[in-house]
Amino acid sequence: MGLQPCARIGILGGGQLGRMLAMAGARLGLDMVIFDPEPDCPASRVAADTVTAPYADLDAVARFAASVDAVTYEFENVPVETAAEAARHAPLRPGVKALEAAQDRVTEKRFLNAHGAPTVEFRPVDSAQGARAAADALGAPGILKTRRMGYDGKGQAVVRDPAQAADAFDQIGARPAILEAFAPFTRELSIIAARGLEGQVTAFPLSENIHGGGILRETRAPAAASDAVAAEAWRIAEAILSALDYVGVLTVELFELEGGRVLVNEIAPRVHNSGHWTEAACRVSQFEQHIRAVAGWPLADPAPVRPARMINLIGEDAAQWADWLADPSAVLHLYGKRRARPGRKMGHVTLLGD
Amino acid sequence: MGLQPCARIGILGGGQLGRMLAMAGARLGLDMVIFDPEPDCPASRVAADTVTAPYADLDAVARFAASVDAVTYEFENVPVETAAEAARHAPLRPGVKALEAAQDRVTEKRFLNAHGAPTVEFRPVDSAQGARAAADALGAPGILKTRRMGYDGKGQAVVRDPAQAADAFDQIGARPAILEAFAPFTRELSIIAARGLEGQVTAFPLSENIHGGGILRETRAPAAASDAVAAEAWRIAEAILSALDYVGVLTVELFELEGGRVLVNEIAPRVHNSGHWTEAACRVSQFEQHIRAVAGWPLADPAPVRPARMINLIGEDAAQWADWLADPSAVLHLYGKRRARPGRKMGHVTLLGD
Repeated sequence: MGLQPCARIGILGGGQLGRMLAMAGARLGLDMVIFDPEPDCPASRVAADTVTAPYADLDAVARFAASVDAVTYEFENVPVETAAEAARHAPLRPGVKALEAAQDRVTEKRFLNAHGAPTVEFRPVDSAQGARAAADALGAPGILKTRRMGYDGKGQAVVRDPAQAADAFDQIGARPAILEAFAPFTRELSIIAARGLEGQVTAFPLSENIHGGGILRETRAPAAASDAVAAEAWRIAEAILSALDYVGVLTVELFELEGGRVLVNEIAPRVHNSGHWTEAACRVSQFEQHIRAVAGWPLADPAPVRPARMINLIGEDAAQWADWLADPSAVLHLYGKRRARPGRKMGHVTLLGD
Repeated sequence: MGLQPCARIGILGGGQLGRMLAMAGARLGLDMVIFDPEPDCPASRVAADTVTAPYADLDAVARFAASVDAVTYEFENVPVETAAEAARHAPLRPGVKALEAAQDRVTEKRFLNAHGAPTVEFRPVDSAQGARAAADALGAPGILKTRRMGYDGKGQAVVRDPAQAADAFDQIGARPAILEAFAPFTRELSIIAARGLEGQVTAFPLSENIHGGGILRETRAPAAASDAVAAEAWRIAEAILSALDYVGVLTVELFELEGGRVLVNEIAPRVHNSGHWTEAACRVSQFEQHIRAVAGWPLADPAPVRPARMINLIGEDAAQWADWLADPSAVLHLYGKRRARPGRKMGHVTLLGD
């Protein structure tokens, strides 16, 4: 059923998530193979093999997938045709369905609502006039986002007044969009859940996430949360995993509202920045948990050994690496990126508490 | 002084120790480069680059060393000429002196005794007659060992009676040898110590080691040991590190005798099987500690987060991998070796305690 040791797992995408997945797979004796358009991508330097080709090169994708025993991906914007081609040659875990659900914000919210996962109210927007109409209907403030390819706060504009909606639509590139009602959240949480090949579901405790400039800056885990919030997060994660017949780690980003109500912000069909703390603080990391699922192996106990605080090193933050290295409470992880650019995730630090 | 992130570190030797060192280096953003005579060695599959050439190919060694910012090694039997050639092109950490001290059992014991580290009594043996004379002088039982290239109990013969000494010499291949008095030890301990580029010394707590058939089977750490034994182990480790002007992790294997006296069995100028538990149970593993030293970076706090029991998976033990994977208290680590052979170290399991 499951793979054998020394089997080969392919990863579509070779950034830091692919790199950490590759190392987790190697620790379990697997040969990890990376597919990425960029030569010298971070994951290539810890993998047994690397294929460098565009995602649109379906012949290369086919050869890559045929050379491994299972394929997974490190990011939700893998083109669906690429993933589907890979799935013709090896088990793709998680599957194409998860990509389709996660790549388009309108599809995603409809999918979530259909499976009992509450979100903010929203309207699809296809034109400047449509943006205005949506803002009139939903009320302000709202957030206009491109339906596709947004991440780390890119492709978004706040609409403070319906009269600004048409301008906001132009500002994000006049592309198919979604207007989301503003969620009056008190904090952002996430749950990193996993589903095994035979349907076993498990989840790390909730993380509390602090963003700045649209980018995750810091995670604290386990988040102090009520039993009701924890149970609701678990219920939502389980419903999504089951609806997608999912195999692997899935992240659900949540808004916690005044009074403890919870809305889903978005889902990521992959390991997630808000789960990096698990590597230093749990017996099993989110990366190993994902590899276990992809390999068809039993999931491990996600209970943390220590509470943790994870700080992202973004852009020039990475220049502080030597200070972190000298901090006796810090576990430093750098991604091997050759150049720091503003907003680029260069590494992270996990501080272990008692 | 220290290396920069994305610097390159070369490792002479690409077995499981090189593999775990390479992953520890990658976690710190370094590019790791392996030198090993065997194609497809375990470490090659987690490294940025690999040079496949015999250790005697000094041109290949020179090119390898010139392509990296520092060189280290994963085993003490790297030929001294190979190490010396590498040292001409990049800082070699630890240095040639440590190899010279560790490769020959007679040189090693003389070095240890000269620096206040007690060992069993011993006699160099160069002939069958010499073996008999040494056994008469030392008394029986004793252990006759080849001076060089012994590991995991290979090249050894017990001499129960001086009359057997000449036969024992033939049995181990009639090579330059050492007769060691038998140490009436109650248990075997080891200390994994490290010295930084600027002389900082640190050590993980003592490990208690259980051997079977000459191979380490199990380590328990931290070992329950008296303050006096712990202090003596620390004193010995520090004296050796300082005498060798050492940079990196060094392992001292110890015999504990009735009454708490301690003798050094042998030293290994490298990370060690009895330190594998640190990966799962400490904030910093022996592998990261070694890389920190080699990179000229500060050493980290070696205090364990949890007590641990490490079980080696040797030869066919590895067939139990699926059971260990399903054990909620176990952290499994497999080395990616393609074939299990009797006595071959295939992986290990760390059980975390409270």
